[in-house]
Amino acid sequence: RRGEMAKSTQLIDNEVFRAYATYTGIVLLKMMLMSLITAYFRITRKAFVNPEDTATFGKGESAKKFLRTDPDVERVRRGHLNDLENIVPFVGIGLLYALSGPELSTALLHFRIFVGARIFHTFAYLIPLPQPGRGLSWAVGYSVTFSMAYRVLKTAWLL
Amino acid sequence: RRGEMAKSTQLIDNEVFRAYATYTGIVLLKMMLMSLITAYFRITRKAFVNPEDTATFGKGESAKKFLRTDPDVERVRRGHLNDLENIVPFVGIGLLYALSGPELSTALLHFRIFVGARIFHTFAYLIPLPQPGRGLSWAVGYSVTFSMAYRVLKTAWLL
Amino acid sequence: RRGEMAKSTQLIDNEVFRAYATYTGIVLLKMMLMSLITAYFRITRKAFVNPEDTATFGKGESAKKFLRTDPDVERVRRGHLNDLENIVPFVGIGLLYALSGPELSTALLHFRIFVGARIFHTFAYLIPLPQPGRGLSWAVGYSVTFSMAYRVLKTAWLL
Repeated sequence: RRGEMAKSTQLIDNEVFRAYATYTGIVLLKMMLMSLITAYFRITRKAFVNPEDTATFGKGESAKKFLRTDPDVERVRRGHLNDLENIVPFVGIGLLYALSGPELSTALLHFRIFVGARIFHTFAYLIPLPQPGRGLSWAVGYSVTFSMAYRVLKTAWLL
Repeated sequence: RRGEMAKSTQLIDNEVFRAYATYTGIVLLKMMLMSLITAYFRITRKAFVNPEDTATFGKGESAKKFLRTDPDVERVRRGHLNDLENIVPFVGIGLLYALSGPELSTALLHFRIFVGARIFHTFAYLIPLPQPGRGLSWAVGYSVTFSMAYRVLKTAWLL
Repeated sequence: RRGEMAKSTQLIDNEVFRAYATYTGIVLLKMMLMSLITAYFRITRKAFVNPEDTATFGKGESAKKFLRTDPDVERVRRGHLNDLENIVPFVGIGLLYALSGPELSTALLHFRIFVGARIFHTFAYLIPLPQPGRGLSWAVGYSVTFSMAYRVLKTAWLL
């Protein structure tokens, strides 16, 4: 039985791929956390968007006033969307990069900087920190993905 | 020729990976369906956002009145964005999970519950069903992805 | 050392996978470009959404007037979100498709048409071109992803 499995898990036996799996798992969990933070602010700020979500506050006009936007909720949502825009390319290009046979140390450098930059970006967005804190952390993550894409295209190029 | 291919398709010969491919294909098609539903509501409700999309209704003021938001359109769009926020982590973490060598029965359980929960979530959002229907289906899908991430990190951990 | 690596890079040695990596890299870089275009329009149109982003323009009322929406900024953002909605399914389904052992020529046809359609879609959105230019390019990309999903489900089907 174990022998059968071995064939299918050979990718996970590769160290670069294991590093990719670890950092991708962490950064996707971080992105998922944004949903919980949004829910937290929606409930504490009483700011909802769907009428059926306010039914617990009563009916009619009394519930309607909770159908509103709140600056804190919108801020978390912008952070979440920025995560989608930046973490999706990292996950896609990072997979191809991990399969392009980079040195483990170089790969770790890319993954660590990206994930560190995105965690910093979340704090910078939610606290919020004065600029250019958020802008720089965004640019660092962006550059890491760009660097991995360069290696992927150089290695795989077949148009 | 077939021999050559075999090497490249060995992943697809693995049963867990085939299950992953099936459920990922289904849930991504479901997500793509949201675009068609948005288009359907935009056209039937005559609610557009780009001026060039209303040119067919004439020019000037007569077309301008179709540049508006519609509650049904916005509802579908929120469902679509919620799909992106939740299906992207499933696709990424699910791939790593499928490569981490889980039992087929355990993997199928994860994939089936996630895809079932997301299909229910879409109906709950669009009908809409009273809460906590939509909230619970969201939480079920979220928990499945979290469970897969736990196994990925436990198996692959290399920081 | 090289021998060790070889095992992990066998996917990247497969021609269909190399084509997938090339086109996915290109189309994800194109999507990332949308962030730069958004930043460009935010700065030139002086239209920001976060108060901390306008601190460079002074304090109080003088800075507050730059917290506004701008049609050009919103247009780029809609294009970016449309990219997410369409490129995410392509990347996910395309990977499974590349691993399902298609003919190289058929795979290249799918990848080329999708990436060409999405690049056209971006120009159609940003210029903007009169409809149905943008709508058709969206439909072409959508159909390519659908065609790949059909093959993935036919090959991998395990429910």
